[in-house]
Amino acid sequence: MKRVTIGFLGCGNVGSGVWNLLEDIAPQIAHREGLAFTVKKALVRDAGKARGAQVPLDVLTQDPAQVLDDPGIDVVMEFMGGEQPATDYLLRALANGKSVVTANKMALAANWHLLQAQAQAHGRGLYYEAGVCGAVPIIRVLADSLQANRVNKLLGIINGTTNYILTRMAQEGKNYEDVLYDAQRLGLAEPDPTADVEGFDAAYKLSILSSLAFHAHVPVTRIYREGITNITAQDVAYGQQMHLTLKLLAVAKRDGQLVQVRVHPAFVPDDHPLAAVSGAFNAVFLQGHACGDMMLYGKGAGDMPTASAMVSDLVQAARATPHRHPTFANQAQAPADLNFDCDWASVYFIRLCAVDRPGALAAIAGCFADRGVSIASMMQKSTVVDGRVSLVFVTHQAHEQSVMRALRELDPAVAALGSVIRVEGLES
Amino acid sequence: MKRVTIGFLGCGNVGSGVWNLLEDIAPQIAHREGLAFTVKKALVRDAGKARGAQVPLDVLTQDPAQVLDDPGIDVVMEFMGGEQPATDYLLRALANGKSVVTANKMALAANWHLLQAQAQAHGRGLYYEAGVCGAVPIIRVLADSLQANRVNKLLGIINGTTNYILTRMAQEGKNYEDVLYDAQRLGLAEPDPTADVEGFDAAYKLSILSSLAFHAHVPVTRIYREGITNITAQDVAYGQQMHLTLKLLAVAKRDGQLVQVRVHPAFVPDDHPLAAVSGAFNAVFLQGHACGDMMLYGKGAGDMPTASAMVSDLVQAARATPHRHPTFANQAQAPADLNFDCDWASVYFIRLCAVDRPGALAAIAGCFADRGVSIASMMQKSTVVDGRVSLVFVTHQAHEQSVMRALRELDPAVAALGSVIRVEGLES
Repeated sequence: MKRVTIGFLGCGNVGSGVWNLLEDIAPQIAHREGLAFTVKKALVRDAGKARGAQVPLDVLTQDPAQVLDDPGIDVVMEFMGGEQPATDYLLRALANGKSVVTANKMALAANWHLLQAQAQAHGRGLYYEAGVCGAVPIIRVLADSLQANRVNKLLGIINGTTNYILTRMAQEGKNYEDVLYDAQRLGLAEPDPTADVEGFDAAYKLSILSSLAFHAHVPVTRIYREGITNITAQDVAYGQQMHLTLKLLAVAKRDGQLVQVRVHPAFVPDDHPLAAVSGAFNAVFLQGHACGDMMLYGKGAGDMPTASAMVSDLVQAARATPHRHPTFANQAQAPADLNFDCDWASVYFIRLCAVDRPGALAAIAGCFADRGVSIASMMQKSTVVDGRVSLVFVTHQAHEQSVMRALRELDPAVAALGSVIRVEGLES
Repeated sequence: MKRVTIGFLGCGNVGSGVWNLLEDIAPQIAHREGLAFTVKKALVRDAGKARGAQVPLDVLTQDPAQVLDDPGIDVVMEFMGGEQPATDYLLRALANGKSVVTANKMALAANWHLLQAQAQAHGRGLYYEAGVCGAVPIIRVLADSLQANRVNKLLGIINGTTNYILTRMAQEGKNYEDVLYDAQRLGLAEPDPTADVEGFDAAYKLSILSSLAFHAHVPVTRIYREGITNITAQDVAYGQQMHLTLKLLAVAKRDGQLVQVRVHPAFVPDDHPLAAVSGAFNAVFLQGHACGDMMLYGKGAGDMPTASAMVSDLVQAARATPHRHPTFANQAQAPADLNFDCDWASVYFIRLCAVDRPGALAAIAGCFADRGVSIASMMQKSTVVDGRVSLVFVTHQAHEQSVMRALRELDPAVAALGSVIRVEGLES
């Protein structure tokens, strides 16, 4: 039996979940893995606060040094979140010869190169399965099961809050604000929902996923990002009428050295496997040149799903000698020969408020045609509001810049832009 | 760079796929994994036969000893299929100190204990990711990502041929025989389709999956098995009208020491993630006590998806020291304290041909009630054929033996059994 001593950084919901799961599953881990875990210290802000696990008072500490500098601690598990002080704490733990298990996508995405360099310098492991998609083992699958693949496409629903909001908007025909308010009331969205609804959280995760998929560091700063705050119930409903489901999608595509990485609302066809991923579930759909289409689906958040991934990482951290690290992650920047494409080709859903008179459609179609944007289907709603009607177009594959230019060139006297939403997953 | 020499057993479609993929991906594997692979010998039946890879003639051999007994070969990859001579060859390779990578679910399910004992006795690895669900990394996820979970449910679409047939029956309203004929013509079903359509193939795979999920050997002989040959277009269509999709489902459930393992046609609700798994795709849906619901989806067969999994295993086999083995797999039998449940609870779809006269429904309902089978919904078709109409019932959760007994007790003058099909995935 190998005895492994653990320090916690934080002991809130997830930390308590890990504590409880370790107690629960200890006999099995001992029998099957030959490992016995003990949590020696848990750093908390307030040792007197009630928590979801029966952590003895002498385990709790408010002094980070008792976790980070104790040579008796082998592995540090971090549940604090946020870039700092988590990053500094993890760097210090690694420098002190501890392996690290974290669910902190922000710290990892922002400081991956520092963390990995520190881990390698001290021969320790850096594990972060729980940082992306909770219990879904996408990190390990990318690293350990797709070695023989060139991944050319990855589409992810990797933020549970926005997926919950969009699912309820679709099911109930409600507005964004109303569903957000409900989600906040239910604790499914933060009081300040910016990180989720503006796509920052998804961008951190996509930085990690696309780096692993492409074996090249994709910094979060290179990811195009657009949130769901402007999505209307009307867009969701018109999409449904066209057999399209709206998601906040993380998209990474690679063609040779040309890469596109973006987080934005996107429609997927109703029969695409991602369309059925509803509520707080997460999924990553990817395409490898050998494996073909693949999807992993599961709970992207929650105490126990996150704990499931972190204890799995803990077993790896306790066992793996030597620890492995991706080849790219010591680089702070993307490789010089990787080109980030800002003029990607996509299908576009475009909603316009057009004047209700003959010739309007011809003028709009001409404007699209001038920029080489070809229309695949059109739907005109008969309701006239202030002399205008809703026109919805779905284009053929078109280039982003051409579409945006065509929309800027629309005569406002003829048509005003309601929304433009990309459509993904049609070509697979 | 670690040089690893490989021997092939077989070099048909999958073997050629692995050969091509190894050539294709060699620079990346060298760079990222520090491994250089060379295929030294490939056992074939006919060295003169054309194959899908440019294998030099001096690599091909018709003598098994040149692969199995050459001390210069480190890893043997097996693509022969069938229980024998594959099992004997793999045992001999392991005895000669080689690790083994195989896609052979039949050899593994039938002789797992022998193969693993041999591997452990000689300190070598036994890898079989490609044996279940092709490219889908379900073996590694069960072993390496769900260590902290008690898996209490696993539902799988793990046979591509039957899923292709059932998908086309649903989409086109065709009969089983017509679609099977088409599938055979297209090379998607074997000339003798028994192994697929009678559920033998799925049972081998479920034996492997449920053993890994439950950490206890579940021999294939303990699996209840029923094929799709009696499925009618009418059943598929009536299911669709009730928002149910028909699949050949592999089911493994565990409640304490009580286990049920079964392969049979089953309806799943249209909004269950498994319902959207169509054509030749495979998927495994599972529920762990910590991770919650999870699903893995991908290509279950084909040269390149299978090669993707096998090369991934090859990297593991070349790297892993020591190789790991599940705790249970040296046992030929299931553990004595594991009880196999033959009276599982399920929801049932029951189609009857009933006489079209008042009182018939009351008689049938009474028969169900006598055995404690409660009806959740009923649909009566208005078409009368030979004085009889189709009645379709969906039950509440009921026990298998009670349902079968109620059906046996139906008065043939009132109603004849058309079909009885279990419904899974409702409770999740």
